[in-house]
Amino acid sequence: MHILEIIEKKKKGVELTPAEIGFVIEGYTKGRIPDYQISALLMAIYFKGMTPAETNALTMAMVESGDQIDLSSIEGIKVDKHSTGGVGDKVSLIVIPLVASLGVPVAKMSGRGLGHTGGTIDKLESIPGFNIELSMAQFMENVNRYKMAIVGQTGDLTPADKKLYALRDVTATVDSIPLIASSIMSKKIASGSDAIVLDVKVGNGAFMKTLEDARKLAKAMVAIGNGLGRKTVAVLTNMNEPLGHEVGNANEVREAIEALKGKGSKDLLQVAVSIAAQMAVLGEAFSTLEEAKEAIITKIADGTALETFVLLAKIQGGDPETIRHPERLPQAKRSIPVRATSFGYVHEIKAEEIGTAAMLLGAGRETKEDVIDYAAGISLEKKAGDPVKEGEVLCRLLTNRENYEEAYQKALEAYVISADVAKPIPFILDVIGE
Amino acid sequence: MHILEIIEKKKKGVELTPAEIGFVIEGYTKGRIPDYQISALLMAIYFKGMTPAETNALTMAMVESGDQIDLSSIEGIKVDKHSTGGVGDKVSLIVIPLVASLGVPVAKMSGRGLGHTGGTIDKLESIPGFNIELSMAQFMENVNRYKMAIVGQTGDLTPADKKLYALRDVTATVDSIPLIASSIMSKKIASGSDAIVLDVKVGNGAFMKTLEDARKLAKAMVAIGNGLGRKTVAVLTNMNEPLGHEVGNANEVREAIEALKGKGSKDLLQVAVSIAAQMAVLGEAFSTLEEAKEAIITKIADGTALETFVLLAKIQGGDPETIRHPERLPQAKRSIPVRATSFGYVHEIKAEEIGTAAMLLGAGRETKEDVIDYAAGISLEKKAGDPVKEGEVLCRLLTNRENYEEAYQKALEAYVISADVAKPIPFILDVIGE
Repeated sequence: MHILEIIEKKKKGVELTPAEIGFVIEGYTKGRIPDYQISALLMAIYFKGMTPAETNALTMAMVESGDQIDLSSIEGIKVDKHSTGGVGDKVSLIVIPLVASLGVPVAKMSGRGLGHTGGTIDKLESIPGFNIELSMAQFMENVNRYKMAIVGQTGDLTPADKKLYALRDVTATVDSIPLIASSIMSKKIASGSDAIVLDVKVGNGAFMKTLEDARKLAKAMVAIGNGLGRKTVAVLTNMNEPLGHEVGNANEVREAIEALKGKGSKDLLQVAVSIAAQMAVLGEAFSTLEEAKEAIITKIADGTALETFVLLAKIQGGDPETIRHPERLPQAKRSIPVRATSFGYVHEIKAEEIGTAAMLLGAGRETKEDVIDYAAGISLEKKAGDPVKEGEVLCRLLTNRENYEEAYQKALEAYVISADVAKPIPFILDVIGE
Repeated sequence: MHILEIIEKKKKGVELTPAEIGFVIEGYTKGRIPDYQISALLMAIYFKGMTPAETNALTMAMVESGDQIDLSSIEGIKVDKHSTGGVGDKVSLIVIPLVASLGVPVAKMSGRGLGHTGGTIDKLESIPGFNIELSMAQFMENVNRYKMAIVGQTGDLTPADKKLYALRDVTATVDSIPLIASSIMSKKIASGSDAIVLDVKVGNGAFMKTLEDARKLAKAMVAIGNGLGRKTVAVLTNMNEPLGHEVGNANEVREAIEALKGKGSKDLLQVAVSIAAQMAVLGEAFSTLEEAKEAIITKIADGTALETFVLLAKIQGGDPETIRHPERLPQAKRSIPVRATSFGYVHEIKAEEIGTAAMLLGAGRETKEDVIDYAAGISLEKKAGDPVKEGEVLCRLLTNRENYEEAYQKALEAYVISADVAKPIPFILDVIGE
């Protein structure tokens, strides 16, 4: 086998064999094939795409490049959940207790965020004492006993994907559906779950800007999951504005607590319930989505959902009273209102701008070494569809920093306001793979 | 300017500016842009092509990456000739004296061959004493005085092209028309001539296998030449069999001498006269091709053409008597007849197989360090269109080596013989840019 012939084949649009794809990934990971040949191959893949068989082979080759988590000592069907990334995305915080409360095990591994705000585990760490560094044994035991646990990613999962992604990032080959799909799915499959629910974000603040592209990505990921024996469903959700009202860390936990009480943002609640229901069905706790949703709504109404979150904090070393009294979560010294400079209706809120503003206030990390200020963030008072008067508060900047002018400007510019009545955007745009 | 944005632009099919192309080429040549980004860009160029403006800019950027030869001290219009490479291609050996005999200056710079047989200067070195290492001053003086001179390539011409070509070679990005066209044209333009005649070979033994591809390449090169102020014409010639009867070095010189007497292979003579006539017209010695051809035929008939080749040998230190008595050129010890194993008509002669066979006999270099055996080669007795009886001699292997079985097999397999009468292939398939 020779890499040059493999590039040539792909360039001509001929399907590569699993053996050829395995040869490429192993050769690249072990340093036998240089960057410059792989980047040419990646660009050829960008133009010629990959067949489902190729995408599956690529995913498995990346899975096999590193450690694979063995969750077999956990009883039941393990269902994982993954979001393609958005702003204000605290869905996991809500979904973990919801699904666990239904008796379906949630063994969640999660990365830290590098970007606008923290990742799920950073957000949880805003709860005093919350420990995400459980041993593998403790993790398994918690899941078996309490049906839930969350840890930071451990082990050396999919090193081939890490190396490939770094190269794609500097060679303009990130935006290829089969490459994105296999990258995401390789991590999920190496994490060892039996079934996967994907939250594919669509809109200005998401990687997929259009519904058409998001559908393509979702279909590709669902095909990989099902092709490799993991039942997979993708829920396409709106990211033409941040999800919910809170963007940050501690304030997002507060909002998640509200949602578990059935209060707060409708968009957030609907997305979280929908994803939790998909997980419950894949976990075979219910045979229909309707039954699952009904059970979830009951768990919220009778307080079980919130108590399950209290329990999660407790079993991971966090202060459970913080969940019952969310005002004890870190709070910023300043709350600066951002006021509208025109009137009309909010058509969209550029989520990336809001995310950048939140980072400027201290809520995120620009480099791995940066320390997150859990109290920092943005609280959106107006959401898409809302009418706005000149001078009215659009959102509030939560920060301990002196300097917030740039964040203010970004937040203001994020709001797209015009005189026409804004058409409501559905929160859930499509479901693939049901 | 950022390389990532440039790759992205090209990937999307947006035209790059000359400044962006200059940035890429300078950055790559100076090592500021790594291989892996350039190979991704090259693959994007393979898929999206280049506009004429981009191709011109790329050519000029490569020209400017190194030395440029200044031929301005030579009087008259300097016309260069370039072949895209074929087997048995001794056209330059014939064209230099023909064009010089018409009073048009030929200042020829030529590379050594790495491959099947030697290049033009290797072939000339089979003439005892022939010196291709003239000083620049001597070279200019000879052209002014005798209207001809030939030297090995001097200076550091188009280092960017060398570096790019080496990368294309290992990333499956060689076969892109704008990249091939700009690579060839950058070397021609850096060599300083005023006008260029291109011999674009077409067929099994050429880089361009089809007339359609060859036309595209020819048009791209003519557009570059004319776009950069060099009148350029491309003659498309047949390479579905080697050109002429001789493949090697000394035997090719012998065949060139025959052609200068108006004898020998019709295909070779027709191609050489056609190219010489184009050069004479570009050099403004004649206003029509017909006049130029008539004058050339006269120079051949009255012996001037051959005497000009004798003069060329003389002024470059070679033994002029060898030209008058070509039997004095190096001759191989062995001449092994390759006999037909079937009957029918010769439809084509796979030129690459003949070339490889010639190399196996000693006529070429596999590595730069290899020494050419000028006497080695292959003499084709049957050419395309000829009828063949079983057992008849197809060609003869000329060699000093003991071991010629593999060459024999290659030469035999090169002949495509079938019972149907072979349709004659025209020697000249098209002319672009007249």
